[in-house]
Amino acid sequence: MARQGLYDRLPSPPVTPGMECSGVVEAVGEEVTERKVGDRVMVINRCGLWQEVAVVPATHTFLIPEGMGFEEAAALPVNYITAYMMLFDFGNLRPNQSVLVHAAAGGVGIAATQLCNTVKDVTVFGTASASKHETISQGGVTHPIDYRTKDYVEEVRKISPKGMDIILDPLGGSDTHKAYNLLKPMGKLITYGTSNMLAGQKKNLLAVAKNWYHQFSIHTLSLIQGNKSVCGFHLGYLDGEMELISQAMDIILDLYKQGKVKPRIDSTWHLEQVGDAMRKMQERNNIGKVILTTEPMPEEEKKEEPKKEDKKEDKKKDDKKKDDKKKDDGKKEEKKDDKKKEEPKKEEKKEEEKKEEPKEEK
Amino acid sequence: MARQGLYDRLPSPPVTPGMECSGVVEAVGEEVTERKVGDRVMVINRCGLWQEVAVVPATHTFLIPEGMGFEEAAALPVNYITAYMMLFDFGNLRPNQSVLVHAAAGGVGIAATQLCNTVKDVTVFGTASASKHETISQGGVTHPIDYRTKDYVEEVRKISPKGMDIILDPLGGSDTHKAYNLLKPMGKLITYGTSNMLAGQKKNLLAVAKNWYHQFSIHTLSLIQGNKSVCGFHLGYLDGEMELISQAMDIILDLYKQGKVKPRIDSTWHLEQVGDAMRKMQERNNIGKVILTTEPMPEEEKKEEPKKEDKKEDKKKDDKKKDDKKKDDGKKEEKKDDKKKEEPKKEEKKEEEKKEEPKEEK
Repeated sequence: MARQGLYDRLPSPPVTPGMECSGVVEAVGEEVTERKVGDRVMVINRCGLWQEVAVVPATHTFLIPEGMGFEEAAALPVNYITAYMMLFDFGNLRPNQSVLVHAAAGGVGIAATQLCNTVKDVTVFGTASASKHETISQGGVTHPIDYRTKDYVEEVRKISPKGMDIILDPLGGSDTHKAYNLLKPMGKLITYGTSNMLAGQKKNLLAVAKNWYHQFSIHTLSLIQGNKSVCGFHLGYLDGEMELISQAMDIILDLYKQGKVKPRIDSTWHLEQVGDAMRKMQERNNIGKVILTTEPMPEEEKKEEPKKEDKKEDKKKDDKKKDDKKKDDGKKEEKKDDKKKEEPKKEEKKEEEKKEEPKEEK
Repeated sequence: MARQGLYDRLPSPPVTPGMECSGVVEAVGEEVTERKVGDRVMVINRCGLWQEVAVVPATHTFLIPEGMGFEEAAALPVNYITAYMMLFDFGNLRPNQSVLVHAAAGGVGIAATQLCNTVKDVTVFGTASASKHETISQGGVTHPIDYRTKDYVEEVRKISPKGMDIILDPLGGSDTHKAYNLLKPMGKLITYGTSNMLAGQKKNLLAVAKNWYHQFSIHTLSLIQGNKSVCGFHLGYLDGEMELISQAMDIILDLYKQGKVKPRIDSTWHLEQVGDAMRKMQERNNIGKVILTTEPMPEEEKKEEPKKEDKKEDKKKDDKKKDDKKKDDGKKEEKKDDKKKEEPKKEEKKEEEKKEEPKEEK
């Protein structure tokens, strides 16, 4: 989405994309007490994480639980927090409900399916191309629907004539209209993207125009008469709410420890192969997360590692580093972050720093 | 709202208003097993309950718990179910959150305040005219706001600069816009009325036009960028969902038994004084429910009682009654209800039947 120009929280280019990563803390800011050098952490940030080293506020880091590798840790934050907050905050998902998950083989789709399965007797309808149905069924989708050959609205109605309790909509445009009409009374439509604005390789102006034309706009009287809810979600606009995000993350990591959720890695690529990695996603050939790593890639082996860090360091060291830091374009981000008190400082020991980095799916 | 022509689920006049009442079951339909003659019940229905005797589907009745009088029982269903479903289904209210309740001295407002207070550390902002502030404070409103002399948006921002987690909006029009802007990230705006369409004694065409002009309409991209939710609720459009309503009622009655919620009765009037009763509400002089009763009103004493009934009766009796039944205009309702299998039949023993009946506040 960022890469395709549909995410307006990105500084103007040159800019480093990347909303999440994992790694090891190499240094921490003066007032940071909750992270220390050497901590294994996963990170979310507005952007700037496709790098070997990154500087982020300490509040944007989460300790990686024991037993979780760096790849999983890099694949987890954005998708799972997004799916969690949509389903359990806006969606208020409860037992016996039904959920329609579009792009059920995508990152958010897989996370949402797993999270749905943590609630008793929830029925998951998932759209994906036929070749991915076996995988998503194993992942917990009750009714896979091939959106390429069938009308998903009809398919859903055949099985659940009254419609859905919750619909997660990454599509936008006319699909949002369809979703709205497919809601049961007290149903919640949660829209979190506009992938219908994309066509082929990049942002498609005709598709954007068409999408604006079909842009979903709803009157409150219609909501009242239908007893419906329409919500919008994007984690990128929620960076002022780290407390909410933290609460969600605590619960997600608990579920991970219980074996109830597990990020699915599609493939891991070296940072230099980023073009191929993106192409794979663009062509919708991935099932799960596409990971970027800074480790050498010896065919099979996929290693991963550190990146940024926190914890009290001595003041002088920090000051020195500040001057060292204005080099690559990821640093633009830092200057903004400097305003934040808790921001961890980065050490420039590049030899020790490696990072792996997934990108968001839309 | 019904009386003022803003509720389109009402059959065209002549029609009997009344969405809720309480009383004693006088007869039940053939297949009804869960209610029996003599049961004390409260009732919700699309309309038709301002009568001495009424016929409703058995599923629209709820047993009155021990210790609850008929007045309280008649005051409870619509307001509490409305407030409950808004706060706990759409609103997903949780500890430490903040809620703005408009018309906090009204029926839904009082119910919402009490329900907010069942959750730990919830802060309630309530609008009402100054003369009602003491009462609503005692009822659990943390911050009463006089909407007549102050800008409620400013008042809320003074205390809670980030805004509200949940806003219950019975006003519509430009107040819905204000509410939307007053939401925190992940906030929920729940609109459930259009009282701004009223001005003075009845539906005001200028006010309606103005309201349509200011009609709140929201684009999904704005929802996404704000991480917000907009919901619409009206119990009158939810009559196909008695299971959901029943679940809510079970919880509400549990809270009643625990002493955590208690309907507030403003005053009780004889059915023949309906004009005066309506005037009191219209002039916003009531705090809590205005109840209509069919009992004689000996100054102080406010009695109340039966009305409709359920439970297996012998077939012949039912058939006979069907012919007797097409008399007063409340019966229009019945013909529609006849489609429903579980519908209880009414006995024509008027001497035994009395009913009390509150009306909805909007």
